[in-house]
Amino acid sequence: MDTKQAPSSDPLFRWAEIPEKVRRTAPVVHCITNYVTAPWCADIVLAAGAAPIMADEPDEMAEIASIAGALVLNIGTLRHSSLDAMRLAGAAAVRLGRPVVFDPVGAGASRLRTESALEILRDYHPAVVRGNISEILALSGRAGKSRGVDADPGALVSGERLVESVRLAASLAETWGCVVVISGPYDIISDGTRSCAVGGGDPMMTRITGCGCMESALLGAYLAAEPDAWKAAAAVMAMMSLCGRRAACAARGAGEGTASMRIRLLDAVSLFAGEELAGADVKIL
Amino acid sequence: MDTKQAPSSDPLFRWAEIPEKVRRTAPVVHCITNYVTAPWCADIVLAAGAAPIMADEPDEMAEIASIAGALVLNIGTLRHSSLDAMRLAGAAAVRLGRPVVFDPVGAGASRLRTESALEILRDYHPAVVRGNISEILALSGRAGKSRGVDADPGALVSGERLVESVRLAASLAETWGCVVVISGPYDIISDGTRSCAVGGGDPMMTRITGCGCMESALLGAYLAAEPDAWKAAAAVMAMMSLCGRRAACAARGAGEGTASMRIRLLDAVSLFAGEELAGADVKIL
Amino acid sequence: MDTKQAPSSDPLFRWAEIPEKVRRTAPVVHCITNYVTAPWCADIVLAAGAAPIMADEPDEMAEIASIAGALVLNIGTLRHSSLDAMRLAGAAAVRLGRPVVFDPVGAGASRLRTESALEILRDYHPAVVRGNISEILALSGRAGKSRGVDADPGALVSGERLVESVRLAASLAETWGCVVVISGPYDIISDGTRSCAVGGGDPMMTRITGCGCMESALLGAYLAAEPDAWKAAAAVMAMMSLCGRRAACAARGAGEGTASMRIRLLDAVSLFAGEELAGADVKIL
Repeated sequence: MDTKQAPSSDPLFRWAEIPEKVRRTAPVVHCITNYVTAPWCADIVLAAGAAPIMADEPDEMAEIASIAGALVLNIGTLRHSSLDAMRLAGAAAVRLGRPVVFDPVGAGASRLRTESALEILRDYHPAVVRGNISEILALSGRAGKSRGVDADPGALVSGERLVESVRLAASLAETWGCVVVISGPYDIISDGTRSCAVGGGDPMMTRITGCGCMESALLGAYLAAEPDAWKAAAAVMAMMSLCGRRAACAARGAGEGTASMRIRLLDAVSLFAGEELAGADVKIL
Repeated sequence: MDTKQAPSSDPLFRWAEIPEKVRRTAPVVHCITNYVTAPWCADIVLAAGAAPIMADEPDEMAEIASIAGALVLNIGTLRHSSLDAMRLAGAAAVRLGRPVVFDPVGAGASRLRTESALEILRDYHPAVVRGNISEILALSGRAGKSRGVDADPGALVSGERLVESVRLAASLAETWGCVVVISGPYDIISDGTRSCAVGGGDPMMTRITGCGCMESALLGAYLAAEPDAWKAAAAVMAMMSLCGRRAACAARGAGEGTASMRIRLLDAVSLFAGEELAGADVKIL
Repeated sequence: MDTKQAPSSDPLFRWAEIPEKVRRTAPVVHCITNYVTAPWCADIVLAAGAAPIMADEPDEMAEIASIAGALVLNIGTLRHSSLDAMRLAGAAAVRLGRPVVFDPVGAGASRLRTESALEILRDYHPAVVRGNISEILALSGRAGKSRGVDADPGALVSGERLVESVRLAASLAETWGCVVVISGPYDIISDGTRSCAVGGGDPMMTRITGCGCMESALLGAYLAAEPDAWKAAAAVMAMMSLCGRRAACAARGAGEGTASMRIRLLDAVSLFAGEELAGADVKIL
């Protein structure tokens, strides 16, 4: 496996235009998500220049799907009623050819979550699945029980396990026919053929709720603007790594804690310019 | 149509006492609202000195209504179960003579939302209806399909369309028998007879989730303290415009983004003194 | 009743290790809570070093309970469906011997809340019950109607009524067989035998939503790490008082309002070191 630093001139990474395209087109992003991080997800989608709509009453799913450029399904506080909404919205998105992002929060923590996640994977053909390593492993059929909604520290995607994780992502991407994003100290993005790892970021990002949920919501915004799902996903993860590191360094420098870091992260996303992506730590693998 | 700047001595605008009365009486405001902006709505009601109670289990609606000074109905993440709660709470508020504020979030985006909104308008006699121009148009029967929860940019209430928007608000106020507030670059407030436009504010207010929801929640607090619904509504919109502009200018000046602007906005509301209303950009129309 | 200032050398207060133990063991805290303060509760649990999981679908309660070190039940936006989830999670926690924290938000405001609260008290044997004086009185059978989710100002635990409040807490602790925490200007913590009052804090803490909810969520984290529930509860209340005062003083000093105070409070919790507990204003009673 060959790794090289992506030069900002690499044609693969002519992606500076993606964040700008999101701002210019302000796509509507339909999120069926949990009530814990919904406020942050809505805010970050708006900060990125897109228009979030959170709605989960089954009765209006087909209509909401028809005005949205992308659908984000997040099972963070899954209920049977929201699962029904996800089914209807997912079917409508498939019918309309709109990209679906799937965030299998807590997959492995309960049979309901794991089975619902596998059903969504199978029936609504997500363009991107994003989870931490424990969640992705739970869906791959290769893992034991999850520790809730956080990644098992022993399974984290760190430097030495990078190659292994990339192989896993690429293999699942092929099986599931989608882009797989595994979040961690390095974020892995693979569509089976193309893979990259995004470094940077900061451990402080794991100390605020919903960094993963926010990434998934942003994936909806970026996918609505950029048809190449792999590029869109890499751009989201690179932007969040840059903004997260910037926010964490500034917060630490000012003697602040995690809540200020969150505010700074959202601020950074709202001020982000596409050309800054050239500074991201991205390794093509 | 005659327009003049309201002098702070205008008896119509002896409203400096309203924010103070809210703080002094700390009315309980019952909100049946969406889970995306509920945290911000609760916080801003508390910042203004009132006491929010968010509750939406049908079984307790009559009792909660009896301890609340006002009821706020917001259909942001409408579900059939919350609609049932709205019906029971609305009926109790009507029975008890408590003012109802209605925020038809996303009216026009689905049949369920539009029909539910029309039902609420008809059956629970809101004292104030507040929405963006797209939502208000959807309820007026004069509009096509909504673009979700945000206003259609082409229909925004800007300077040149002010007169037209005021006519619309006044006419709907008469039809519906309530105060109509249309939010936008200028906020229009009309009870059919009296109309005013509140300028100021800042475009950054549209880049955080829930500015409209927060205004509606504050309308509940102000209506519970001030029986003249038109004056109460004008005071809320003027306060939010002043606080929003102050927050946005300070955030921009400090190189901050949208999340800091939100924090500064809530801070400004918590520190707001009624006499500052004299500085609002209010045009009597 | 004898009162003395707890010297930091008091063996009762060798509690500096509790916050550190929370960080070291990062217990999973299962919260079934309201959607208004859920984002803040999740964030503060994470800030304290534990791992929150918010889940309330009845179907997965037994499994989630099995991976959690503690269960927090909060009836802030109670619905029949979440009550079902609380029953299943409560029964699982009892079966597994995991500590349960109960926050009877708004008890007294509706028959549903009061009756549900009494059922939870009776059937799921909470290790700690935390509420404001109005809520605790409603459960004690000694009070009239609540004013919603906030304490009746006339019943607040202030200096002169301290002795009376401590007697109430101690008597209820004995009746209910648990630690009772009554929040207020002074927080009372009693297990029937041992009682203490925690001063400090700041009135600004009542001007942000969910200070009580956050305390209850933190109680879950601390109880999962410290088997002595009285000590764990005293440590939480002491930490929050210290962090709240620090945040409020800093916010006021900088001319900021309530939203900044909240951010500073969460920051302070994320930066808190156990040894700082020595500076808390704790009176053994």
